[in-house]
Amino acid sequence: MANDERVGDNWLDKIRWNADGLVPVIAQSETDGQVLMLAWMNREALARTVECGQAVYWSRSRQRLWHKGESSGHVQRVKDIRLDCDRDALLLRVEQQGGIACHTGRQACFYHQLREHEWVCADPVLEDPRSVYA
Amino acid sequence: MANDERVGDNWLDKIRWNADGLVPVIAQSETDGQVLMLAWMNREALARTVECGQAVYWSRSRQRLWHKGESSGHVQRVKDIRLDCDRDALLLRVEQQGGIACHTGRQACFYHQLREHEWVCADPVLEDPRSVYA
Repeated sequence: MANDERVGDNWLDKIRWNADGLVPVIAQSETDGQVLMLAWMNREALARTVECGQAVYWSRSRQRLWHKGESSGHVQRVKDIRLDCDRDALLLRVEQQGGIACHTGRQACFYHQLREHEWVCADPVLEDPRSVYA
Repeated sequence: MANDERVGDNWLDKIRWNADGLVPVIAQSETDGQVLMLAWMNREALARTVECGQAVYWSRSRQRLWHKGESSGHVQRVKDIRLDCDRDALLLRVEQQGGIACHTGRQACFYHQLREHEWVCADPVLEDPRSVYA
């Protein structure tokens, strides 16, 4: 077991965590390729993600681990975890339960589209946000 | 013109820049949906991106504006710019010239795949990296 832990630590050490001990994490739908959201992880969040096979982020606003979908059921089953060339960003390919990643009830968080120097709401709300969070 | 500038400033003010005046930016291929890279922009980088229609990032390592592909010709033509629900992350859908976004000569930067607690190189080099950068 001690040996396993060393292996585990090693892959976590390969990541270049920022000054706050975090990395940005892109979640992409493996079904249709949509970029769903950008969130953050610390070491513990990533270790738990790998352990349980579902995305666990670090909520910067709440300063605590955030098992995505813990209350709404909209968990993200992780199919693939990638690290970039600079080792300071992660990409998760996920199966998004319920098809809704955003707390506003949309499929994805990137719904403000830039048009003629204005941000316009471009994607529909699919579910009452009150039932989605978080 | 003064009026135009105010409009311009306004859409930039809607973004929640971090303490360093930056936001993370995801570049996604509009052709096949691949997530190509994660980079950073400051106000000037984003303003220039919109102005010229090609991705201009802020290089944190070189501390200067970085017109992606300026030396290699691998520019990113920007088709769509999205801001997320928290207004602190951007998504660009781009047409990647040359089909190669990574300075290692790969299509995308996220080529380290996590397998059994090890990062494994999962994607092929398509072009000699010496001819790619940056």
